[in-house]
Amino acid sequence: MTAPFHRTASIFDRDLAPGPANHVPLSPLSFLKRAAKVYPDKPAIIHGHRIITYADFRERVRRFAGALLGAGVARGDTVSVLAPNVPALLEAHYAVPLAGAVLNALNTRLDAAAVAFILDHSETKLLLVDRELIPVAREALSRTERPITVVEIADDLAPDAPTLGAVEYEDFLAAAAPASWHGPDEEWGALALNYTSGTTGNPKGVVYHHRGAYLNALGNAFTLNVRPDSVYLWTLPMFHCNGWTYTWAVTAAGGTHVCLRRVEAGAIFDAIAEHGVTHLCGAPIVLNMLIHAPAEVQRRFDRTVTVGTGGAAPPSAVLSGMKAMGFDVVHMYGLTECYGPATVCTPQEGWDDLDADALALQVARQGVNHIAVEDATVFERGTSRPVPADGETIGEIALRGNTVMKGYLKNPAATKEALEGGWFRTGDLGVLHPDGYIEVKDRSKDIIISGGENISSLEVEEALYKHPAVLEAAVVARPDDRWGESPCAFVTLKPALKPGVERPSEHDIIQWCRGRIAHYKVPRTVVFSDLPKTSTGKIQKTVLRDAARELGTRREAQTVL
Amino acid sequence: MTAPFHRTASIFDRDLAPGPANHVPLSPLSFLKRAAKVYPDKPAIIHGHRIITYADFRERVRRFAGALLGAGVARGDTVSVLAPNVPALLEAHYAVPLAGAVLNALNTRLDAAAVAFILDHSETKLLLVDRELIPVAREALSRTERPITVVEIADDLAPDAPTLGAVEYEDFLAAAAPASWHGPDEEWGALALNYTSGTTGNPKGVVYHHRGAYLNALGNAFTLNVRPDSVYLWTLPMFHCNGWTYTWAVTAAGGTHVCLRRVEAGAIFDAIAEHGVTHLCGAPIVLNMLIHAPAEVQRRFDRTVTVGTGGAAPPSAVLSGMKAMGFDVVHMYGLTECYGPATVCTPQEGWDDLDADALALQVARQGVNHIAVEDATVFERGTSRPVPADGETIGEIALRGNTVMKGYLKNPAATKEALEGGWFRTGDLGVLHPDGYIEVKDRSKDIIISGGENISSLEVEEALYKHPAVLEAAVVARPDDRWGESPCAFVTLKPALKPGVERPSEHDIIQWCRGRIAHYKVPRTVVFSDLPKTSTGKIQKTVLRDAARELGTRREAQTVL
Repeated sequence: MTAPFHRTASIFDRDLAPGPANHVPLSPLSFLKRAAKVYPDKPAIIHGHRIITYADFRERVRRFAGALLGAGVARGDTVSVLAPNVPALLEAHYAVPLAGAVLNALNTRLDAAAVAFILDHSETKLLLVDRELIPVAREALSRTERPITVVEIADDLAPDAPTLGAVEYEDFLAAAAPASWHGPDEEWGALALNYTSGTTGNPKGVVYHHRGAYLNALGNAFTLNVRPDSVYLWTLPMFHCNGWTYTWAVTAAGGTHVCLRRVEAGAIFDAIAEHGVTHLCGAPIVLNMLIHAPAEVQRRFDRTVTVGTGGAAPPSAVLSGMKAMGFDVVHMYGLTECYGPATVCTPQEGWDDLDADALALQVARQGVNHIAVEDATVFERGTSRPVPADGETIGEIALRGNTVMKGYLKNPAATKEALEGGWFRTGDLGVLHPDGYIEVKDRSKDIIISGGENISSLEVEEALYKHPAVLEAAVVARPDDRWGESPCAFVTLKPALKPGVERPSEHDIIQWCRGRIAHYKVPRTVVFSDLPKTSTGKIQKTVLRDAARELGTRREAQTVL
Repeated sequence: MTAPFHRTASIFDRDLAPGPANHVPLSPLSFLKRAAKVYPDKPAIIHGHRIITYADFRERVRRFAGALLGAGVARGDTVSVLAPNVPALLEAHYAVPLAGAVLNALNTRLDAAAVAFILDHSETKLLLVDRELIPVAREALSRTERPITVVEIADDLAPDAPTLGAVEYEDFLAAAAPASWHGPDEEWGALALNYTSGTTGNPKGVVYHHRGAYLNALGNAFTLNVRPDSVYLWTLPMFHCNGWTYTWAVTAAGGTHVCLRRVEAGAIFDAIAEHGVTHLCGAPIVLNMLIHAPAEVQRRFDRTVTVGTGGAAPPSAVLSGMKAMGFDVVHMYGLTECYGPATVCTPQEGWDDLDADALALQVARQGVNHIAVEDATVFERGTSRPVPADGETIGEIALRGNTVMKGYLKNPAATKEALEGGWFRTGDLGVLHPDGYIEVKDRSKDIIISGGENISSLEVEEALYKHPAVLEAAVVARPDDRWGESPCAFVTLKPALKPGVERPSEHDIIQWCRGRIAHYKVPRTVVFSDLPKTSTGKIQKTVLRDAARELGTRREAQTVL
């Protein structure tokens, strides 16, 4: 039985229209306004020895916005930033929308051609660039014919670097009249632009709005329990979905941001010890970096540090290693299109009683929609029917709610395709477990189809990661004359092996897998090498797929089995 | 400098309209949907020995909504509930909006005339009534000519009670087809109706919307740090601003609700000990009840219980007494018009180092807007200019944001007056401290104007509460032939006094105050008596004001000074 479709006027429909007293567009700008009022003298941003209080943070943001307006930036213009996690980039997360413009934080590992493409496509009016990145910025600017105002960040902690001779960021601020504080005209208004890493074709510009950022920030503050006394270390690039919206969430809570130019184990441990860090986020590579850090770099701390991670499932060895060091790993999942984390592997009562391997199986899943996401499920491919919750049937993960992007900039066809049918189709393949938890099985393109069977590269990788000599592993499809495709494993061994662990051969690795996963899933090819990674620490499977293809079609006679 | 007013079309204005994938009306219904998915087997509601899991909670809500629709309740109709804090009332917080109707939780202490007025004014279609309240319901129903369907709650824990012969709640649910789950059509749609206690004239019906309830629930979950492992004890009536929106906030977090028919010290301590309660809310009277509970009723517990309180500032003796017992008191402030708590006395670093009295001065303030409220300030009376932040200048407290009511039902004039100028004018008088914290000085009508000077009754009461023999105190204006008005104190002494404390005379009380506050603020009249209270534990100053008037105009010769 459902509510009657027919809407009759009720007494509640009369004389109760919204007005400025009871309707304010949701915007993360409200978070800074409140934090500066409640915690004016508290450190908002720590960068090396520099401390910016919340009152200073607001004042600098007002000056920055005023400077942007003075430089001719208008409502709906794009302001791009090419910088590591320095205060200027964090300040841009408030100043650019305060000026009514849209923030485009650029991936710092892009080459000049990609940067130029994005500057053009986003119709960037002003580019803020850290001096360390001037070489790529200079080349990118030479490739675009747009008139782009440039502002340079001369960060004290940056290495010596060239200059374009443009105005320096601090001078830009100092010369400006502070903008008055006001939120956006409408919460659906554009706030930020994030280009997908786009392994094929040109990257797409994902548009975020104020409402979605506000809600995703609140949802993610709740997920990791970010509180007023939290100290958040910026190991995750802010250009990655605006730092999974923690750029805004930490401010919402009134916590402290600790900036970090370079993600290195020593710098992370030092920050944890010196600044009382309670939270950090990062791709699994960050977890690996911490676990495998040399003993002289590791430092002890007397609290639990919550680590939000996403992407590939953390293997059990990584999880228990992190726990032993004092880190509590929270596994989340999301995409650029949904402001970063949309699901979280929410712990359940009873998990504490599980042994390490059983716990890892639970924790490695992508979980359930977080508090501000309306729904997350897995659809049978090409349908809007959820797969059975059997942990077996693979379908496409779909998300719905206020933290799904507005769409792709200047790309209505792609927007329509992504959002058709009232759900955002992620392109990721997964299963629904009986407890309703989602587990990612693979990106569509990462599934290996061997002899008609689907093989999840993640499952093979999990087996490889358990080998005591394996540091990192990635599995992709290699053309196979008998099976169509067969699994090809790229493996990086640990630089130093524990006593009693021998350096494995290709054959040893294959035998190891045969003891752990179904025969047809066992890699037929093993390549020992370093793994190519994206700027956000994701292994670039597209590069490995090319490498596997270059090995040529595998013939059965070649097998070492 | 401000952003240009002129809005030009930008690339972000094209092809990026909201749709069902990326825009979902905010509604607390989403919280139950998610909690039932994530925590199906977890206790959602505990009532005596009865446990309702989250899966059951959702199912019962679906049946309840189906039953309402089956009974002819349509979109925009009012469903009233007259019940203490039992599961049915909590379930109504979801089932009524799921049916598209509007929940009106009635104050259980109202007399039949007031209930009848509200049933008529709200155009109630269906009344759910706990059997203990059938006497008042019967009389109220006899006074209204509306056709109202009645459903009775036969709670296991209720005393023996009469029946109206109407359908019983559990039978009502059992016979129904479960409604399908869907949120509201629009987040601005009416969700709940809460009548003000209205000391003069008829009560006004405050209309809440889904958006405001969603945001206030998230804001208040953050304020008291309600988490998935939280256990919330229902000492605060759910009819009081929908339990300050914790009816929804606890579900949002996936915590556990513990119902409570009667607010008694023994029952509270038992629930804390037996159910692992972590949170409760209540008027200061609840704090007093816990502190003054007989030793045989008090129970120890091994955790800190967070207590949200509002209304009058807790005196320092109450705060330190609560702390010694293991309670952490959080002082909040709000009104029916803003869904309950809108400000919170957020603790600051350094407060821990203060002595008890200095800390009480800080904590007793009403504080700053919570995370989901846009702004809270104090205006010079009759203007939109904030008072100077000097802790001295009294003005009117004003609030702005998404958690301000839609307005008053069928009362556009009162709505306009309350929301005029883009702020909700609370009618409460207060000051702004240099740190931006608001402190309530009084309701406008509670200010005593004596010889042209404003006297805050709260300040006089704080002095009275410090007297070791005083249990409760309230100060109102008494007509005075010399001063116009003078302070008249109504005082309840403690039933048992500590050794060395003597029962004070009227003269002793006056001398006590002279040592603590300015001469002109000292009560000229002291009356020892019990204090009349509202159903929510607020002292009824309006009754005392009448009593003070009945004492007649005070003449200087009558003074005991």
